[in-house]
Amino acid sequence: MVGHLDPYFLGVMDETMADLREIFGTTSHHTIPMSGTGSAGLESIMLNLLEPGDEAIVGVIGYFGERLATMANKAGANVRRIEEDLGGIIDPARVEKALKEKPAKLVAMVHAETSTGACQPLEDISRIAHEYGALFAVDCVTSLGGMPVDVDRIGIDAAGSCSQKCIGAPPGLGPVTFGPRAIEAVANRKTETPTWYLDLNLVFQYWGDAEGAKDRVFHHTAPVAGLYGFNKALRLILEEGLDSRYARHKKAHDHFRAGLEKLGLSLFTPESHRLPMLNVVNIPEDVDDLAVRKALLQRDVEISAGFGSLKGKAWRVGLMGYNADPDRIDILLQALEEVLKEVRK
Amino acid sequence: MVGHLDPYFLGVMDETMADLREIFGTTSHHTIPMSGTGSAGLESIMLNLLEPGDEAIVGVIGYFGERLATMANKAGANVRRIEEDLGGIIDPARVEKALKEKPAKLVAMVHAETSTGACQPLEDISRIAHEYGALFAVDCVTSLGGMPVDVDRIGIDAAGSCSQKCIGAPPGLGPVTFGPRAIEAVANRKTETPTWYLDLNLVFQYWGDAEGAKDRVFHHTAPVAGLYGFNKALRLILEEGLDSRYARHKKAHDHFRAGLEKLGLSLFTPESHRLPMLNVVNIPEDVDDLAVRKALLQRDVEISAGFGSLKGKAWRVGLMGYNADPDRIDILLQALEEVLKEVRK
Repeated sequence: MVGHLDPYFLGVMDETMADLREIFGTTSHHTIPMSGTGSAGLESIMLNLLEPGDEAIVGVIGYFGERLATMANKAGANVRRIEEDLGGIIDPARVEKALKEKPAKLVAMVHAETSTGACQPLEDISRIAHEYGALFAVDCVTSLGGMPVDVDRIGIDAAGSCSQKCIGAPPGLGPVTFGPRAIEAVANRKTETPTWYLDLNLVFQYWGDAEGAKDRVFHHTAPVAGLYGFNKALRLILEEGLDSRYARHKKAHDHFRAGLEKLGLSLFTPESHRLPMLNVVNIPEDVDDLAVRKALLQRDVEISAGFGSLKGKAWRVGLMGYNADPDRIDILLQALEEVLKEVRK
Repeated sequence: MVGHLDPYFLGVMDETMADLREIFGTTSHHTIPMSGTGSAGLESIMLNLLEPGDEAIVGVIGYFGERLATMANKAGANVRRIEEDLGGIIDPARVEKALKEKPAKLVAMVHAETSTGACQPLEDISRIAHEYGALFAVDCVTSLGGMPVDVDRIGIDAAGSCSQKCIGAPPGLGPVTFGPRAIEAVANRKTETPTWYLDLNLVFQYWGDAEGAKDRVFHHTAPVAGLYGFNKALRLILEEGLDSRYARHKKAHDHFRAGLEKLGLSLFTPESHRLPMLNVVNIPEDVDDLAVRKALLQRDVEISAGFGSLKGKAWRVGLMGYNADPDRIDILLQALEEVLKEVRK
């Protein structure tokens, strides 16, 4: 542990920013881990980019889209939600229709919807958002580090993720990136941001408001130990190589799906837009959700419950980072096979 | 590492809440570490208790009082600041005068002003605030764990601290406590809180909205590793015993002050309201601030710069938790003696 203004630690911060830019696929300087969990990172996007009365269009294909809409609403925006059935993704034409009807300051989408296992394609929506003068923000909590997010190529203006999941560090930090259009929107705000803690202008006084900035003004005491772990996790990702890592996640998914089929189990999400790292498994009708999850936990294997209306009907299985590995997946599959036999007795 | 909804982890959360209540000196259930640094905890107080247009009175005796005022302002409140010269504390009569002129929803004070080393007495101000129907909120970032805060005895309605300093865990968590009057004020809000991440109603769905609550609704993924460290730090405090710990901090301060005197150095803060854990040392006129701090850092001893107008004129020396120890203070004093000789050559 060193002080949060120790020259050594400032070096750790600079390295973290550089590595994070590479993983987000951006050259934007304004790329940092916010000092809160992934949700805090996403809230920093909404509270800095939106002002009371602004128009926002939010794609809702599950719980996490709903959460983005709630955050935008709390930021004071008039939120128009574009919804799709659970498991589905949003047709870009619907975003265009909404923008034609009334322009918006921000279009926000969830890239990898953790509640349904759906992967929302972003390119067309990004293009349309910009054609109509809107900023484009993305929740990439579950995708970052496990598949390409490509912030600059796609033209994403702001994106937020988390430190656990495919990044593989402990939870507690909210990596975010803000592009030049987003930073300009913050500079052009007419009202004060309602947050001090997540106020980008203040946060970047500490992280440095431009490349090579030497002045680091105290804002809050950085979570030094958490940032060490995060820094190391980013290093491990880049040592593995982004393409190798994405391929490993894809391969892990294929391995898991094949194993599920052998157990007579199927995936909820249509194959056309299925995420590799978050697998939503249909629970067979003759099997009790909680009994299975409890028995697995006793074997030190944790899978998650379904979200909202999928609760009791589906399990969610994360194959992220360290766990995107055939040997570890075999442990899960074998435990699942045993437990299913047990509960069906 | 286990999942943030793992039964084992829920046990860690319950234990953490119980220990934290003891250290704050409160029986209020609504006592948790917020998932952000100490600043996030303080902001959660302002954003939940204040609504746009509310009146707030904030004591400003240094940088951290100023920060409270800024946060209250960002929450939309009309903020009246009661200021005192650096090193001073606020006379309760001034709070009474301000409340007489115009009532307020909230009176907020910094207990231990880290920028000046001053300890603000709270009892009279708490009594006056309640007499005039205001809530009383306290920043006890630097005091908690190193001296009594006594939330219930003093009648503090909301208090926020940090996980480092006298608690002794890594930075990254913001312990807060909200009493019944504060919780009632949140329930009676007329407007939506502008934050999702720090919204108390949502946060306590996860931490449990009442004693023994079994339902834990997902809000955000808790910073599991950080909470392990925090939990352990609280355990260590209670194993040492609160009274012993406070006495140790007092003794460390006396030891340091005596050592300073031998070096011909003096403390900035008047003795009548001097903090034990944060010592503001006057920099002798013939000595360069930065040269001394850099030379100390090369000896692995870190002291802090003065804040604001005290920069270059004073050093701030934290004697907190692990560092409130005569042997460790002697290391500092000896290094300081050597370095002062060096720079005066």
